[in-house]
Formats: sequence, C-alpha cells, structure tokens
Amino acid sequence: MTQRITGVLSPVVTPFKADLSPDTERFVRQCKWLLANNVGLAVFGTNSEANSLAAGERMELLEKLVEAGVEPARMMPGTGCCALTDSVRLTAHAVKLGCAGALMLPPFYYKGVSDEGLYRNYAEIVERVGDARLRIYLYHIPQVTQVPISLALIERLLKAYPKSIAGTKDSSGDWNHTKATLDEFGKDGFDVFPGSETFLLAGLRNGGKGCISASANVNPAAIHKLYANWQSADADHLQAGLDKVRGVFQKYPMIPAMKRAIAHWSGHADWATVRPPLVEINAEQSKALIADLEQCGFTMPGLKG
Amino acid sequence: MTQRITGVLSPVVTPFKADLSPDTERFVRQCKWLLANNVGLAVFGTNSEANSLAAGERMELLEKLVEAGVEPARMMPGTGCCALTDSVRLTAHAVKLGCAGALMLPPFYYKGVSDEGLYRNYAEIVERVGDARLRIYLYHIPQVTQVPISLALIERLLKAYPKSIAGTKDSSGDWNHTKATLDEFGKDGFDVFPGSETFLLAGLRNGGKGCISASANVNPAAIHKLYANWQSADADHLQAGLDKVRGVFQKYPMIPAMKRAIAHWSGHADWATVRPPLVEINAEQSKALIADLEQCGFTMPGLKG
Repeated sequence: MTQRITGVLSPVVTPFKADLSPDTERFVRQCKWLLANNVGLAVFGTNSEANSLAAGERMELLEKLVEAGVEPARMMPGTGCCALTDSVRLTAHAVKLGCAGALMLPPFYYKGVSDEGLYRNYAEIVERVGDARLRIYLYHIPQVTQVPISLALIERLLKAYPKSIAGTKDSSGDWNHTKATLDEFGKDGFDVFPGSETFLLAGLRNGGKGCISASANVNPAAIHKLYANWQSADADHLQAGLDKVRGVFQKYPMIPAMKRAIAHWSGHADWATVRPPLVEINAEQSKALIADLEQCGFTMPGLKG
Repeated sequence: MTQRITGVLSPVVTPFKADLSPDTERFVRQCKWLLANNVGLAVFGTNSEANSLAAGERMELLEKLVEAGVEPARMMPGTGCCALTDSVRLTAHAVKLGCAGALMLPPFYYKGVSDEGLYRNYAEIVERVGDARLRIYLYHIPQVTQVPISLALIERLLKAYPKSIAGTKDSSGDWNHTKATLDEFGKDGFDVFPGSETFLLAGLRNGGKGCISASANVNPAAIHKLYANWQSADADHLQAGLDKVRGVFQKYPMIPAMKRAIAHWSGHADWATVRPPLVEINAEQSKALIADLEQCGFTMPGLKG
C-alpha cells in the first residue's frame, strides 16, 4: 500500500501561452520548484483553473509531468468532474500513473442535489476505477460548487469504502466545519487538509495532516516551515507571517494575482495569462500588488530561470 | 444562410441503460417522436443531464442522431462547457453537422466572474469556431449556473458578432427579465426563447420566438398547439391547460419525474434511469405522479413502441 500523502500541497497554477494553450515546459519547472520547496502537487485544483481545461488536456499535462520525472507519489490531481464518465476516466488515469491520491469535487452543475445522489457518484467512481491503490480526497468548497460534502456523506462513504475514501480538503473557510470534520473522522485514517494555510496551525493542533492552499503556489517555503515546526515555540509567529502574505494576495482576485507574482519573479510575462472566464489583474493592480509584496519582504527565490 | 430555428424546442431527456451508458436507439426514437409533434431538439440541455455526459459522449450521440436521419436544421444542441476548449470543440462539431444553432451555457465553475471574462469566453468561441454558419443562443439560467448573462453582456456581444449571436434562452423564470430582454434586443434579429412554456404566450405577445422547455419532453403536441394558435381567441385557455400539466410535474424533481412518465407511457422501464448526482423518484412518488397525470387526462400518444 502506498504511504499516505501529507504536508503542504499546492493547487498548482496552470501556465498558459499567449494562445491560451497550456505551457508544459513552464508547468514542469513550476512543479519541480514547488517540490524543491517541500510542497506537494495538488495539480488541477480550483486555483489551477482545472475546470477551464478539457479532460484530455488534464491527462496530457499529467503524463508530461511524470515523463519529466515529477514524482507521482507527491501528486494529488483533481479528478472530480460534472460527468461521472469524466471523473472515472481522470481518476483511473491518475491511479494508473501512480498518483498518491485524487482530489474530487462533487458534480457541481445541479444545485440542491441529495446526499444519496452524491453518494452514488462517489460509489460509482470507486467501483468503476476498481483499483486497490485508489485514494479519494473529498473536496468541500461549497462557496464555489454550491454542493457541500456533508459529514453524513463522509460517514456513509467511509463505512462503504474505508480504504478508498482517504480524506478531505475543506476549503469552506469555516473553521467550525473543519474542526467538526477533524473531531468526527480525523482519527479513523481519514486525513483532513484545511483548504488554506490560515488554518494550518489550528488544523495540525487538532489532528490535521497539512493543508492544500492556493498561496502554497507563491509562498511554499514559509508555509512548509510552519508545517515542519508546528510544535515549536515559534509556531504562532510563523502563522502570523503566513497570514500577512496571504492577506496581500487576497486584496486582489487570487488566481490572477498569484500568476502575476509568478510572472514578476520568474521573469516570464506569459505566466500572467488566465483562461476565460477569469481575467488578468490590470497594470495598476499589478504594480500595487508587487509593491505591497516587496514591502513585506516577499520574494520567490529560485523561481527565475 | 440557414433559416433561424423557431417554435417550441425540447431539451431532450437523455435515455440511459441500466449501466448508465446512453441508449442511442431510444434517444433517436424520442427525438423522432418530438419532431413528429412539431417540437425541435435542444438536445444536451439542463434537462438532458448534458453536464453529466463527457464531451465525447455528447458528440457521439449527436452523430448518431444525424446518421439516423434526424434533421440537424431542427437541432440546437447545448455546447457551453466550463472549459473553453470543450466549448469550442462541441460547438465546431455541431456547426459542421449542420445544426441550426448552439445553446451555450457560460462557464459555470467560478462564481462572481466579470462580464469581461464572459465576453472573452464567447468571443474566443466565435473566433475559434470561425464558421459563418455559427448561431449562438446565450443560455441564462442563473439559479443553476450562478453565472447570469447580463443585458450589458448581450449588448456587447451583439455589437461585436451580430451574425453569430443569434438569441437567448431565458430560464431565469423571471418574466421581468425576459420582458426586458425582449424589449431591448427582440427587434434586432436576436431571438428570445423563454425557458418554459409558462411564458410561451406572454413571450409571443412580446416578440418571442417560441420556448425551450423541459415539459416539451412530455407534453409536446399541446405546447406546439399554443405556439401555432397564439393569436386565436382560445390562446389563454390553451396556456392554462399547459400550466396545469406542468404544475403536476413540478410537484416532483422535474427531470426524474419526466423520465418516469416517459418510462410509463413508452413501456420502457429503463427510461427512469438518471445519472448521479440525480436520483430517480421513488415508487410511491411514481405512483402518485402517474395518478395525478391520468386525472388531468394526460397521455403521451405515439410514444409506445
């Protein structure tokens, strides 16, 4: 059995060329930079614009990462789609490539769907993928999907598929919900990852396994440092430092702002490109963002190249 | 130039086999039955569970319809996806097959996106499909997508692409919005279809071109009858009859209820099957639905076979 993935993971932002096609070379470089900073790869998450990519584009990018020597045991690709058949295809593909897990959105088109319907979705995926190596992480991000993963659903899935249902990413931003998930399931081999480093320390103090956070794209070393030193006297101070940097990015639309920072520190202007329906931050915002970050002493060492 | 499609269209429910794969044969038969009842085919809409199908499944089903002799000039397939690349692929495919139009959801994963981002999405699709035959119908269904198509967005798109932007389906259920759309754009060769027959008569009286309605799946002849006779003295009475039948279906989850009725009147039990995250209505609800419909004198003539 594969060892469970833990620690800090980044929903890796996806680099596009000017024609909006994915730039494999920059993607590989970015993933290697994150790994060098001890951050795992939750590629194809919300911050990756994963749903702005076709299933085939996602599969091709994942294959390119593995071919380039990026370790699948450090990857938890997003594979949850609206269509069951897409979810099965992407999940089976990720498992076959040896990925540590699959981060799975619920089908998010229909609203007000029942837990029974969501249970059937995940159960069908487990059954159809039919691979003992499968590790599913349920992705709770109700402010985007409008389809929450309830505690009752987790309980039912864990009972039916205790080996395949491996954990959750809780991006609700609601600590009470994260705490309830940790309290109820955190001791059953169900790994809880808060969806932001804001709750990294609180999560670890309550049995969490790390975090999967947008800002790990831009601030990986510092976030990992807290993960590695959470029991030190310095931990609250480290957490405050992370919150400060995150606060700067959050003054802007998060994905375009992170891509803008990467463009700036990598020296590759195309990094700022996003796919519609997202829009780049404008020149004025970009200037303010970089100035704000420099004022914090923020930098992205090792990114240039 | 192709003649614009008008009249009553049905977001055709997609038949699945017990293993959840699409049943092409039943799909062809259903489409032919709808056409025989003077109802056009907005295949791959919300009521078709289109987002529960992979892009490849949608393309294959569309090809099978055309191969089976279903007239593309009577089709307006749904081709709007979260991923621009999927939308372009599906739309180009539909145009190449000769479909009258493409019904396009906005990318619906991210919430709170800007009109600029939505404009870029549709503009990229028009440019990349690059076919003079393209007719886009903007699909406004904010209660599901949470991504409205604003009047300002319609205005900007119409100005940039007056030939490709052909109309809208307004499924908001908000007559004030439908009326505002009709008043502002209804005279510019921009065809407005209310998203339910509830507003068929009101729409036609204000320059609408028909409707695209779930219940056209089950009540096609009667809905077309109002379309064909909207200027008759009997029109309000016909509208009241449609509202009564729709009211029965609306007492239940609409898609499973319509599929249950088709299963009953066609004699094919598999018609009741839905893909997760939807769930069939239960035995008790099914019994009550059929009893209610029979009490209205409702039937589906010509469906059995």
